[in-house]
Amino acid sequence: MDKDLLVGIDLGGTKVAAGVVDHRGQILAKAARDTQPERGPAAVVATINEATEAVLSQVKDGYSRLAGVGIGVPGLADVDSGVVLFAPNLRWDNVPVAAMLRQHREVPVYVDNDANAAALGEQWAGAARGVKDMILLTLGTGVGSGLIFEGRIYQGAAGYAGEVGHITMDENGPLCGCGRRGCLETYASATAVIRQAREAIESGRETSIKALAEASPKGLEARTVFMAAAQGDAVAQGIVDNLVRYLGLAVANLVNILNPEMVVIGGGVAAAGEQLLGPLRREVHQRALPGPAQSVAIIGAQLGNDAGIIGAASLVLRGRSPKFHVNV
Amino acid sequence: MDKDLLVGIDLGGTKVAAGVVDHRGQILAKAARDTQPERGPAAVVATINEATEAVLSQVKDGYSRLAGVGIGVPGLADVDSGVVLFAPNLRWDNVPVAAMLRQHREVPVYVDNDANAAALGEQWAGAARGVKDMILLTLGTGVGSGLIFEGRIYQGAAGYAGEVGHITMDENGPLCGCGRRGCLETYASATAVIRQAREAIESGRETSIKALAEASPKGLEARTVFMAAAQGDAVAQGIVDNLVRYLGLAVANLVNILNPEMVVIGGGVAAAGEQLLGPLRREVHQRALPGPAQSVAIIGAQLGNDAGIIGAASLVLRGRSPKFHVNV
Repeated sequence: MDKDLLVGIDLGGTKVAAGVVDHRGQILAKAARDTQPERGPAAVVATINEATEAVLSQVKDGYSRLAGVGIGVPGLADVDSGVVLFAPNLRWDNVPVAAMLRQHREVPVYVDNDANAAALGEQWAGAARGVKDMILLTLGTGVGSGLIFEGRIYQGAAGYAGEVGHITMDENGPLCGCGRRGCLETYASATAVIRQAREAIESGRETSIKALAEASPKGLEARTVFMAAAQGDAVAQGIVDNLVRYLGLAVANLVNILNPEMVVIGGGVAAAGEQLLGPLRREVHQRALPGPAQSVAIIGAQLGNDAGIIGAASLVLRGRSPKFHVNV
Repeated sequence: MDKDLLVGIDLGGTKVAAGVVDHRGQILAKAARDTQPERGPAAVVATINEATEAVLSQVKDGYSRLAGVGIGVPGLADVDSGVVLFAPNLRWDNVPVAAMLRQHREVPVYVDNDANAAALGEQWAGAARGVKDMILLTLGTGVGSGLIFEGRIYQGAAGYAGEVGHITMDENGPLCGCGRRGCLETYASATAVIRQAREAIESGRETSIKALAEASPKGLEARTVFMAAAQGDAVAQGIVDNLVRYLGLAVANLVNILNPEMVVIGGGVAAAGEQLLGPLRREVHQRALPGPAQSVAIIGAQLGNDAGIIGAASLVLRGRSPKFHVNV
């Protein structure tokens, strides 16, 4: 039987999403479970295993065709040993998740940080197919990043590479969750956009953001602000401009330092599409040196909500099975 | 005859320095010539060739033991083809220097940017022996850098990687040679230190910098400012503090993004040694995330004035002759 299937596990603090992914990066089956990390690592691993069984049973000959399992975790992982070193949202400290899963099944298990997995997924089956040098920035609750240099995820000396969310943009800026001030994440995350919108509403400034948020079942989101800006709301446009300014500065600096071929913008904020990417490109072209600025494409992520599963599945490709297309 | 010798050429806008380097990175012979780039590339290549002959003739069996020639250039090079794409100080545009030199001799010729060569030299025979993930910052006329990831020079998508001197520190900062404002190089280069010292003297502030500069045959240098600061001069200390602040911020951001094992500080400003490195380490530890901050060593370059020759020679090691020790 051909080993032509992968399982990708997107392990978050709230949800475990599992999917069966084929050799071209298409999801054939998926399922989600509650993580409930308070139950401890063994119970979470049992849930991962149960979700894996569930999705594999939906695909013909799923078990026998399985080449490997990849897990993207919200924290720091030792990719060689498959140990999650530190994942605060899971309350995990040195959890040997690969070994624990391997007790259940014979296939190889690969573990990496979720942002690294998402970058690898975009490179395998998304916006950055065939790109060797790229940076994925995810603008969500925080700002994460995955770096791919010469076709491979770059981990750094101790696995910490890619903490782009915590580069200092303004040492007198807003307080960040990390305890420092003015980190990129305090300007360019969905959280930052929502914070500024709340502040504007509370200060009584005239803006349509409030009415739009009240009209939506999901309340105030980053997209509410982009929607208001698209409708000509000046307060919302100011928030978008501020985001573009700081994100543009950070991306320009990354472009100067690393000369990537592509910068891929993902996460909730990236749903704004060209409303964000157009001004961002102009800002980067103004601020970066001409050489590296001209050689970079700045585009939106393509895998959307499935990025976690497909990215996690792509971790298995490190094993380099010739059955899977790796475009670099 | 064992091919156990390398020639390193440090090609600058003013001087061509050539040296014979042994398999442990020791210089056995060296020579310098004027570049006189106004003569055109062919004449400069003839000078490189002549200097190579001169140093080889100083070493027993020099010609027959030569494994290859490496050239560090002040500009952008295509390392695969050995073409200098752009080197303003040489007035070179698409000069196939490796092919031109190869007309003179049979050995392989390797070309790269001088900052990359210096980083490789420090990794081979200097401060960063055996280090796989490192950043060299040279604080001289400008601020240059060479990035080594997983043991190899990182070029980026189009060879521009490492333009750390032009990351924006303050968009309202001093005007930079690149036409933008507040680049790192306007705060952390020797030029920046001297500029601030001049401004302080011209504004009539009380400082010993002026007297120290007048007492030196070389006049006002970056080291004059460090010397005055070490003697308790408040104006000089203010300039040093400003340098440490911006350099610390930039290094902390690099540490967050890239999680290097080592950051090596070279160039004229680095001659200040611990007077610079001590405060710099404190600044980086305050500003970077604890994980990457704890895994980085910040130290001074070791190769000094010979960094250009040894670094250029180390480019030949890309050919990976097993006769040479590569410590990674």
